[in-house]
Amino acid sequence: MDFNITIPDKSLIDQLIRKVNHKTKPAGSLGMLEEIAIQVGLIRQSLTPSLDNPCILVFAGDHGIAKEKVSAYPQEVTYQMVYNFLSGGAAINVFARQNSIGLRVIDAGVNHDFGAHPWLVQQKVDYGTRSFLNGPAMTKNQLQQALDYGKKVVNDVAAAGTNIIGFGEMGIGNTASASMIMSRICGIELNQCVGRGTGLDDRQVQLKYNLLTAASRMYPDISHPLDILQSFGGFEMVQMCGAMLRAAELHMVVLVDGFIATATFLVAQALCPAIKSYAIVCHRSGEKGHKLMLDYLKMTPLINLNMRLGEGTGCAVAYPIVKSAVAFLNDMASFEEAGVSQKTDE
Amino acid sequence: MDFNITIPDKSLIDQLIRKVNHKTKPAGSLGMLEEIAIQVGLIRQSLTPSLDNPCILVFAGDHGIAKEKVSAYPQEVTYQMVYNFLSGGAAINVFARQNSIGLRVIDAGVNHDFGAHPWLVQQKVDYGTRSFLNGPAMTKNQLQQALDYGKKVVNDVAAAGTNIIGFGEMGIGNTASASMIMSRICGIELNQCVGRGTGLDDRQVQLKYNLLTAASRMYPDISHPLDILQSFGGFEMVQMCGAMLRAAELHMVVLVDGFIATATFLVAQALCPAIKSYAIVCHRSGEKGHKLMLDYLKMTPLINLNMRLGEGTGCAVAYPIVKSAVAFLNDMASFEEAGVSQKTDE
Repeated sequence: MDFNITIPDKSLIDQLIRKVNHKTKPAGSLGMLEEIAIQVGLIRQSLTPSLDNPCILVFAGDHGIAKEKVSAYPQEVTYQMVYNFLSGGAAINVFARQNSIGLRVIDAGVNHDFGAHPWLVQQKVDYGTRSFLNGPAMTKNQLQQALDYGKKVVNDVAAAGTNIIGFGEMGIGNTASASMIMSRICGIELNQCVGRGTGLDDRQVQLKYNLLTAASRMYPDISHPLDILQSFGGFEMVQMCGAMLRAAELHMVVLVDGFIATATFLVAQALCPAIKSYAIVCHRSGEKGHKLMLDYLKMTPLINLNMRLGEGTGCAVAYPIVKSAVAFLNDMASFEEAGVSQKTDE
Repeated sequence: MDFNITIPDKSLIDQLIRKVNHKTKPAGSLGMLEEIAIQVGLIRQSLTPSLDNPCILVFAGDHGIAKEKVSAYPQEVTYQMVYNFLSGGAAINVFARQNSIGLRVIDAGVNHDFGAHPWLVQQKVDYGTRSFLNGPAMTKNQLQQALDYGKKVVNDVAAAGTNIIGFGEMGIGNTASASMIMSRICGIELNQCVGRGTGLDDRQVQLKYNLLTAASRMYPDISHPLDILQSFGGFEMVQMCGAMLRAAELHMVVLVDGFIATATFLVAQALCPAIKSYAIVCHRSGEKGHKLMLDYLKMTPLINLNMRLGEGTGCAVAYPIVKSAVAFLNDMASFEEAGVSQKTDE
């Protein structure tokens, strides 16, 4: 792996904690906002961090496994939704606009040719992956190319001044991929990893589980995170993985979305555990396996609204909470500044 | 009671559900955002509701019981924090600014004389309540005056075009009041209602509990919500109660904050159950009893970040989520508009 992520230097931590504790509020009373403020201060190596040009990258890709009816929607919805992103009508557009978050849509491997568009980044590896029922979803070369593409788009965004970045996705069939990856990385039985995705009923979930169990038996020996990603991933997930790793390498704040993005993050942290210091899990998805992923990672999501839409919508909706954390660190008065008495016993 | 709150007319509900379900997303995949969107649509009686001039009212008042060391902070912090609100340095100022929420600070009964200030509403009932160890915290006349004041400030805010309103408070000692009210309204033993407030240690919590148990025995027979409020409330809570009821009467969206505000809401909904249709619980507080209050109300908070600061900070931090709910309802494309295929089995 050609990523070199180091844990943020901790020398500012005492000053950050002191600053948080001297704000005009009982110690600890802003809860997780205090933890996020300190984390962002360490990532950005500043007592007065700023969140600059927040951006969400939505990676789209098609999946060979989608032909096996693992989704409630037909495969063409992937490219149709890309058009929806580009015309501004999808949920992620609405939430990104609301919270002044920039958006780029990456064709990582959609089974469709798009024309040029200012928001579209053309990084197609192929017209979709191969079904992992017929061998690994992609070749080693495709894996490497997709990782490189992910790195490249983050370099571009960083050059434009972004220091906080969220990751979303679109890909009919990709909860099947994510479930396979989750099961292998976390060592959790597949029946705990397979859920309704975009809306399967009980019978369809059972068929999805049966199919994935059969597929899993074809890969008895793989265990390296990159082999898992190559075998079961989508191009959107591999590019996202490269992008997450590069963002942490560049000391950006990494916003993790729901089930698919967290499965991708599982691979990233297996490759470079230090990425966890840069990451904030934005929400807990309603998709069944997500809670277990978060338990495995020992990470607490900012919100839990039973959303399960993908696209980076959890990042976009939760982003104002990250802003609140940074805002109180920067803008609240201290007890001394405000002339407010401290605790009676202090 | 001179409040006349009616449950919102439900005739739009089918159209609202249909509109939500035709957005370009799997049905139900925006979780609680969908419920909030429908609720706001019904409150505002519109398929395209808007949130206008959001405002948070921070009611401040002093408590006779504060002399009994039920708080980790001295009583003067109430007025000092009011000055902090007026100079813009408190947490609620930071979060309200961040999210473009207007702020008014109400002197409902602080033990201090303030000069005029554009954000300050002078509605002082008295220089603090009487300790409820020595008889009811206020007189019946004071109770009525405080309810009327609460109603008045909401009338003013409504006249300025606000249709969504949050309620915060500041009052050293008011978790003691809120615990007493919670215990009586919900029928929950005091030991489940008494917590650390602004930061008591175990020994201090025990003393607070002993004190409140003794106080409770002095009022064996009161059960009417207004009698409970008169006996144990603070002027900030009574004004907030009148304000909440008036806001619902005017078909505004009512944002409920943490432990104190929810205790106040407990009284309001005991008086007029229909207020629940207008209310959104913004966050779950880290204060011990809050979860049980929410269980009693059968209401789910938007966020749960272990905050316990009061001031309306939970409302201000969670407000963007309410905006997201309304934004997707208004601005997302439908399947038909975007030309996206629907579920395979539909």
